Amino acid sequence: MIPEPAVSNPFPARVDKERHVRVALADRSYDILIGEGLLDRAGAEIAARLPGVRAVIVTDATVAELYLARLEIALAGAGIQTRAVTLPAGETTKSFAHLEATVDAILQARLERGDVVIALGGGVIGDLAGFASAIVKRGTNFVQVPTTLLAQVDSSVGGKTGINTPHGKNLVGAFHQPSLVLADIATLDTLSPREFAAGYAEVVKYGLIDRPDFFDFLERHRGSVFAGGPERSEAIAISCQAKADVVAADERETGARALLNLGHTFGHALERAVAYDPARLVHGEGVAIGMALAHRFSRTLGLCSGQDAGRVTAHLEAAGLPTTIGAIPGPRLGRETLMEAIAQDKKVSRGRLTFILTRGLGQAFVSKDVDPEAVVRFLDEELTP
Amino acid sequence: MIPEPAVSNPFPARVDKERHVRVALADRSYDILIGEGLLDRAGAEIAARLPGVRAVIVTDATVAELYLARLEIALAGAGIQTRAVTLPAGETTKSFAHLEATVDAILQARLERGDVVIALGGGVIGDLAGFASAIVKRGTNFVQVPTTLLAQVDSSVGGKTGINTPHGKNLVGAFHQPSLVLADIATLDTLSPREFAAGYAEVVKYGLIDRPDFFDFLERHRGSVFAGGPERSEAIAISCQAKADVVAADERETGARALLNLGHTFGHALERAVAYDPARLVHGEGVAIGMALAHRFSRTLGLCSGQDAGRVTAHLEAAGLPTTIGAIPGPRLGRETLMEAIAQDKKVSRGRLTFILTRGLGQAFVSKDVDPEAVVRFLDEELTP
Repeated sequence: MIPEPAVSNPFPARVDKERHVRVALADRSYDILIGEGLLDRAGAEIAARLPGVRAVIVTDATVAELYLARLEIALAGAGIQTRAVTLPAGETTKSFAHLEATVDAILQARLERGDVVIALGGGVIGDLAGFASAIVKRGTNFVQVPTTLLAQVDSSVGGKTGINTPHGKNLVGAFHQPSLVLADIATLDTLSPREFAAGYAEVVKYGLIDRPDFFDFLERHRGSVFAGGPERSEAIAISCQAKADVVAADERETGARALLNLGHTFGHALERAVAYDPARLVHGEGVAIGMALAHRFSRTLGLCSGQDAGRVTAHLEAAGLPTTIGAIPGPRLGRETLMEAIAQDKKVSRGRLTFILTRGLGQAFVSKDVDPEAVVRFLDEELTP
Repeated sequence: MIPEPAVSNPFPARVDKERHVRVALADRSYDILIGEGLLDRAGAEIAARLPGVRAVIVTDATVAELYLARLEIALAGAGIQTRAVTLPAGETTKSFAHLEATVDAILQARLERGDVVIALGGGVIGDLAGFASAIVKRGTNFVQVPTTLLAQVDSSVGGKTGINTPHGKNLVGAFHQPSLVLADIATLDTLSPREFAAGYAEVVKYGLIDRPDFFDFLERHRGSVFAGGPERSEAIAISCQAKADVVAADERETGARALLNLGHTFGHALERAVAYDPARLVHGEGVAIGMALAHRFSRTLGLCSGQDAGRVTAHLEAAGLPTTIGAIPGPRLGRETLMEAIAQDKKVSRGRLTFILTRGLGQAFVSKDVDPEAVVRFLDEELTP
């Protein structure tokens, strides 16, 4: 695979302060550290919290080439014995077969419950390694070292782990909180622009859920966030704090945590409709289109102003993200395909659908009473060229 | 497979009162109901606690033939839609492959997190179905309908679920508490004498851990317990209460729950040494030998009187259980094989072994400081014909 060009960094000599976010979950509380060079300090940070442990690092081939040796050196420097498991890169790695192989490698290393599994990589590796850590000996310690923007602001925080099955994504898994998250923002410099933008969709999401000031901040500082200025780590820290707050209030998604699905009902349906083909659509792009649709659908329902819906679409487009169904490359998606995908993704309760809707910027809410006919009419509008 | 003769029941017209045990785990508390005919009341009991659910029943071929139709009728009678998954009988079913197949069947039935997985069978089915229930959509409701004595007094209570791997038994799993346990004691009438005796070893264990009065009770009423008298359900209820107390105090085995492993260090080593061949040794028999050895080893160490160790051995033998390594049929087991198996089962900390030892009947304690040399000398004694 030919690597896409990296985001250029116009602030090579910047000194950016390290930021800490605490996820408050009683005896399962933990720190998220956000800053440059954390990869090289991983051994010291882990040893300070989990003295005397041994470790298994789970990573993928792409990330291993870039960062595995540095992490291994950092751990060895703190006296932590390690073994590494390198899996293929890509979403198909989140399977039962790779879970079994990972679990087997962890057992082979004779890890005990007090030892630690370290996920080095993006969301796929974090979800898979976290799930393996949750079930080996009914739960070992777990540390996340996320290397993508999506993983740093979303999947590494909150303890959702899991794999995919032929029946759908993330349908098998566990809630298993890490002991520590080390988000080394220097790793973002090796992301392709497309990957960075996809992660940025989840950053924007936190503003749109309930932080209108953060959305304003992103409108003002998008350029610096994308260029690796200090606003980048600030945006990551605010995103982690936003997610930590939701998770602390509703760890197992019995209520408010559902708001994190803003843009995800339409987004998941689009991903499913393109058969999860990353050449056509990656997750963050689906979320971007989904958020734009959720705002325009809310406007159609008379809930949200056209001005707010317009600002959302404009901001996502300025960030290089798609905001319409028609923007997805490849064969045109039809209304029937999308409605079927929506019905498969969501629990239909007495003929009504659940969506995250909004009354305006930062005013998202859960509606369990959406009329499927209204969705059909809205999609028809959206699909009219 | 030719079925072994069932335990005869000389009390066909007995009226035995139903017994209830509560497992106190805050918002995960649940009831264990122990009595006759609960299989036929399962629908009503589940619907009362989990209104409106659908169900997937997980069972094995042997149990399905005896009880599946009755359970399905009972559930249908309460308006609960069901689907059944029937797996092969036997310990090898606790594998990744059968876990994946079970998870797949549950997803195929489109079970939601609020729906219920029901385990109908012995320990293997309970452990596997419970683990599947723990990981489908990160946790569905779960109900245990244990049909063996071992499952009724031990594996169905306390939320330990899991599967085996080539590295050892129960090395992969989750803590996942059921919402309800329905122990229909009439199902015990179809157990072979050998299976009943094997489950009885775990009953005796609760007396030996910290309930000397219960051990006295068993010495007095063993005949009636084996014959299906009212003392049988009393013994089951006391056993469940004992386990519930330990689990309530230490759900995730960070301390006192380890006492439940009385007899299991030697027992697991023996099972491993015979390569888990049930023709030679089933789990309860391993525990019986293990408990006899733990008491004799404690006597050798000067911790426990010879009289107490003798009473344990005598009681287990009267119940038809083996109490010496030499009683295991097939090729003789040597000291080296056993020491290797002990080292594989246990965490060796600074050269010392962890064992459950005892100061006498009902006075078990955890020792993390056992000298492997003392174990070697003890085994040499035991293996001398």
